[in-house]
Amino acid sequence: MEKIKVAVNGYGVIGKRVADAVRQQDDMELMGVADVVTDYRIKTAAVLNIPVYAARPDDVDRMRAAGVPVSGTLHDLLRRVDVVADCTPRRVGATYWPLYEQAGVKMIFQGGESHALTEHSFVAQANYATALRRASTRVVSCNTTAIVRTLGAVKKAGLLARARGTLVRRASDPWESHLEGIMNTVVPEARIPSHQGPDARTVDPELDVMTIAVKGSHTNGHLHAWWMELARPADKAELLAAFQSAPRIAFIRMSDGVAALNSTLELMNDVGRPRGDLWEVALWEDVLTVDGREAYCVFQVHNQCIVIPETIDAIRALTGAESEGWRSIQKTDQTLGLKREFMPAAQALAA
Amino acid sequence: MEKIKVAVNGYGVIGKRVADAVRQQDDMELMGVADVVTDYRIKTAAVLNIPVYAARPDDVDRMRAAGVPVSGTLHDLLRRVDVVADCTPRRVGATYWPLYEQAGVKMIFQGGESHALTEHSFVAQANYATALRRASTRVVSCNTTAIVRTLGAVKKAGLLARARGTLVRRASDPWESHLEGIMNTVVPEARIPSHQGPDARTVDPELDVMTIAVKGSHTNGHLHAWWMELARPADKAELLAAFQSAPRIAFIRMSDGVAALNSTLELMNDVGRPRGDLWEVALWEDVLTVDGREAYCVFQVHNQCIVIPETIDAIRALTGAESEGWRSIQKTDQTLGLKREFMPAAQALAA
Amino acid sequence: MEKIKVAVNGYGVIGKRVADAVRQQDDMELMGVADVVTDYRIKTAAVLNIPVYAARPDDVDRMRAAGVPVSGTLHDLLRRVDVVADCTPRRVGATYWPLYEQAGVKMIFQGGESHALTEHSFVAQANYATALRRASTRVVSCNTTAIVRTLGAVKKAGLLARARGTLVRRASDPWESHLEGIMNTVVPEARIPSHQGPDARTVDPELDVMTIAVKGSHTNGHLHAWWMELARPADKAELLAAFQSAPRIAFIRMSDGVAALNSTLELMNDVGRPRGDLWEVALWEDVLTVDGREAYCVFQVHNQCIVIPETIDAIRALTGAESEGWRSIQKTDQTLGLKREFMPAAQALAA
Amino acid sequence: MEKIKVAVNGYGVIGKRVADAVRQQDDMELMGVADVVTDYRIKTAAVLNIPVYAARPDDVDRMRAAGVPVSGTLHDLLRRVDVVADCTPRRVGATYWPLYEQAGVKMIFQGGESHALTEHSFVAQANYATALRRASTRVVSCNTTAIVRTLGAVKKAGLLARARGTLVRRASDPWESHLEGIMNTVVPEARIPSHQGPDARTVDPELDVMTIAVKGSHTNGHLHAWWMELARPADKAELLAAFQSAPRIAFIRMSDGVAALNSTLELMNDVGRPRGDLWEVALWEDVLTVDGREAYCVFQVHNQCIVIPETIDAIRALTGAESEGWRSIQKTDQTLGLKREFMPAAQALAA
Repeated sequence: MEKIKVAVNGYGVIGKRVADAVRQQDDMELMGVADVVTDYRIKTAAVLNIPVYAARPDDVDRMRAAGVPVSGTLHDLLRRVDVVADCTPRRVGATYWPLYEQAGVKMIFQGGESHALTEHSFVAQANYATALRRASTRVVSCNTTAIVRTLGAVKKAGLLARARGTLVRRASDPWESHLEGIMNTVVPEARIPSHQGPDARTVDPELDVMTIAVKGSHTNGHLHAWWMELARPADKAELLAAFQSAPRIAFIRMSDGVAALNSTLELMNDVGRPRGDLWEVALWEDVLTVDGREAYCVFQVHNQCIVIPETIDAIRALTGAESEGWRSIQKTDQTLGLKREFMPAAQALAA
Repeated sequence: MEKIKVAVNGYGVIGKRVADAVRQQDDMELMGVADVVTDYRIKTAAVLNIPVYAARPDDVDRMRAAGVPVSGTLHDLLRRVDVVADCTPRRVGATYWPLYEQAGVKMIFQGGESHALTEHSFVAQANYATALRRASTRVVSCNTTAIVRTLGAVKKAGLLARARGTLVRRASDPWESHLEGIMNTVVPEARIPSHQGPDARTVDPELDVMTIAVKGSHTNGHLHAWWMELARPADKAELLAAFQSAPRIAFIRMSDGVAALNSTLELMNDVGRPRGDLWEVALWEDVLTVDGREAYCVFQVHNQCIVIPETIDAIRALTGAESEGWRSIQKTDQTLGLKREFMPAAQALAA
Repeated sequence: MEKIKVAVNGYGVIGKRVADAVRQQDDMELMGVADVVTDYRIKTAAVLNIPVYAARPDDVDRMRAAGVPVSGTLHDLLRRVDVVADCTPRRVGATYWPLYEQAGVKMIFQGGESHALTEHSFVAQANYATALRRASTRVVSCNTTAIVRTLGAVKKAGLLARARGTLVRRASDPWESHLEGIMNTVVPEARIPSHQGPDARTVDPELDVMTIAVKGSHTNGHLHAWWMELARPADKAELLAAFQSAPRIAFIRMSDGVAALNSTLELMNDVGRPRGDLWEVALWEDVLTVDGREAYCVFQVHNQCIVIPETIDAIRALTGAESEGWRSIQKTDQTLGLKREFMPAAQALAA
Repeated sequence: MEKIKVAVNGYGVIGKRVADAVRQQDDMELMGVADVVTDYRIKTAAVLNIPVYAARPDDVDRMRAAGVPVSGTLHDLLRRVDVVADCTPRRVGATYWPLYEQAGVKMIFQGGESHALTEHSFVAQANYATALRRASTRVVSCNTTAIVRTLGAVKKAGLLARARGTLVRRASDPWESHLEGIMNTVVPEARIPSHQGPDARTVDPELDVMTIAVKGSHTNGHLHAWWMELARPADKAELLAAFQSAPRIAFIRMSDGVAALNSTLELMNDVGRPRGDLWEVALWEDVLTVDGREAYCVFQVHNQCIVIPETIDAIRALTGAESEGWRSIQKTDQTLGLKREFMPAAQALAA
């Protein structure tokens, strides 16, 4: 079988992880990455033997002058690929649409672009089928992805009436925390609902979720706190079963000493995850509380990497390389190494 | 009229503020403060000409040796006062009960003690009347006080069905942030509901509130995010009117550049508040959102000082010095300088 | 005696403190402050009954529309004053020079401007005399001021050969920490020496000091760590005597529990300082170490306010209202309440 | 050749990395790790198929009850190994000495133990030879190791007269930052010199270094700022050559966008380092400044991992498996993947 040829435009937090993940898939081939920067961020692509392209023709000389080994322009790269994963900054992706379209490649955008751009917003477990062979889709943002995975699972189990959540967002990614950050404060978003709740409806219009978002003084991901009104009185076992029926949700436990965002990431490093990445939504199993028709939970969203598996699936969906969503999900998760539990004994102990 | 003679036991974050506030009341006299520490925290009481007592007889020599001018023991101090405001650390207050009781003084505890200790939990606007001439009461914790002030006001206006909130708590007070702290993480509480929701019912058993609490990596107070289910469809003006009908809620606005916890505290310093204290619940007026039978709001709780006005009122209630709650509240607020708006033009602009 | 009429241009971190301090001087009158912003920062000037002016004519309407009660333009204000304290952001001050000059007012700039602008850089204890009746001067930055105060004192005592220091700077001021900050990192300055060392020589060309600067993940001021090579072997008592012979250095002690930047600021709030301001360089007396011809010390520089006393003195120097530097220093320090020791017993204990 | 059989006691920040590194050496075999905890930290050893032992007999049942698959006690483990790497917490290691000695195993302690315990303190490049076939040694702490590597190299080149440094230490490791931390402050050490300077002399008694240490509000490692007095006037090329002549110093550059502690660690993740580890001292090549007989530099010390290569070398030294230090260093560094430069083009660009 011919491998799917993939380009990544924007070798930043998301782009470099997509590149890593593509290289792990036996049905894909990373043809190159494009960017506009000239510093260590793009030079490391060269260290990893990934062909580097200048996103804009004007950048070629500047990048070469800075010691970046440039193989050509994005335009050149696009001619060699089937699909481009656009991982450029928020609202920049849309500006590349004409170039992508002209090259006749399938296009995957990230959650920083608007739903209107692609008219399809993607979370693998929710709507892989409708993305099949489309020209483009948008992998929704980390928080929206997490909402669809978790609350979508509760809804699918017939248990969700509505959910109202508060998101404690990270203020900056670790790599840029010396440039952009907040210090010793909490910053509430000026608008309620924040965009994540409504955005989840671009994937599943019937998901009745609303969100309040605040920024916290930390860099290592988001924490979600949710209240759910259930469709009928239920117990904790039913909720757990709902979460277990969906992919890409992992259970963590206070009783294992996994007590905060930093604990989970240490655990990811301990089990050998590259970059300490946590692709799953990590849901505290022993904090989940169910009380009749009300339920409460908290979970962790590692904003830098949670959409990587979805992006891999989107590549298969758009190219039609795999027609069954569950098979793509399974393949992606096996390749990357997603888990339901991170410690062997934990599941037994939870019983 | 004879002034109410007041002792403060525990000259920490709360105790020193209670001492300051008592000294501003023309119907009260601060007879002294007691503590067990020997460092700058208690030495500053001497700088302010407040008589210092050793909380335990054994501490006298140690404190004097460290240069603290000790006037006697807490036992001595209690004989000279009508009421003691216990501001010792969590769960320590209860250990002093026998000493207080034996001295025949009225006792005010803080929210770190259990409701069972006093069997009366106090928020001035909610239940001043039932505290009148009691032997003891407990001023509930900062978060619980804020909940009763705000959601209690919505309930009093007949608008509240139930409320579900997420509290982003400060991890440590600024003074101790070199000793106890968290760094670059968010720590969810292991139990839902966290204690604040149920605790509010010790003041008003009919307040249907539940809370999820997380600790954030900041020191300057708590941020509350609330979803409210209303008893009937309402509009924003009605909610605002409800908040305005209650004391000790101030309105702040994103449109004034008051965008985060730190902004509000800078504003408090700018308007001359001692220690930058924010005694009011600071509610973002322009973030408040009402949508039929649902409403959402965020507010700021300055944990170090919000219970100070309540403690002053509790002194009047227990001693019976003022039989009308609203009169005590008014007197306290005028003396300390509480506001509904911090900037003259803001109210006009809001219109 | 006629009071010195003062304008403050730029009502930010420094400007609002200069305004506060001017209002406390019996030989000065604050005629108004000018700014370009429209939010709470300038509205609080109105709360404090300070006349507000628009820095640029074009700003009048915009500021009024936002509810700021504008009394006129900076141009109007300058006609009514003897001296302007320019407290605008870094490098902005210079752009106002022509306007100030045309108005014929004495000009005080802050350390964000270059020495070349005024050709005189000011630290009261070092060179009040040469500033007398000059048209302009520049109050050097917080760190440079602290260096001149402390190392200048050691030099004046004939004890300093050279000094090499590392400055751990705050990354952002508290008020703006939700906009500009760094998180969980340390950022070294790309150039050694950092500007502070050389800048101290604009005040005292014979001060042999060099500095390395790094930014830390905190907001509450700078910490200096210094190695000094002494001109001759000395002991700790001699060093202490040198520091005591200079104004505006206060002694703090680990043994009093003043253990970190945050402790000192809590202490400032405890002793009633407005905004918790620490105008003195706070030097850890019990950390100071002298070993033959080498000495080491650490001190705290509260960047938001340390130059306020110097600015007040500069007003008197430029206007010639006081010809003796020590008398202006004494008057300023008494008015604001500067101290050598913050706790009465401490000095005795130190013996 | 028979492999060296290694035990690790204490599977924490250091211990788990030593275990990882031992497993990568073809001349070593990890026989097991011992600990006393029961949570995710030790359970992950089981995930990695590392035999787990209870450090104390009493812990066996407790650990098993918590789901940790315990293979026996430390006592059992020691009987099967040639050498134990003690990675227990500060001052705990010494309490195990009798057990280790009785088992007749070679003992490697970490820098939290005193020099007196082993009477030999180890940095591979400085004194591998004197550790050969000793019964025990102590791998000095991260900061001391970094000092010996860097300033030791300058001394070896005949360029160092003396050096005075300031260390901006991380306050807590990331994994424990929800338990122990400092917030929004800088904490100077109460004593000067801090222990690191004198400690370097336990390795090289002729290294004239003194240190001031402060704790910063960050978790990701230490930053060193050094002033050096040179033995003779020199230029930057000579200093660079000195650093290049020593192992385990890597050059980083502001000009590559590596601008702060967090940048370097992102780079480590980007180039595929496990846990984002930076085993080298990372010295900013373009910040290094030489001015006649004075030089200044800043470098980064990743406290969690910098001593791992030294510990591997110490295993070879004590067991006599390799008699030449440089050969052990080379083998260790090749196995782990230490670099002088992280980006291919950088060195060329630096020219």
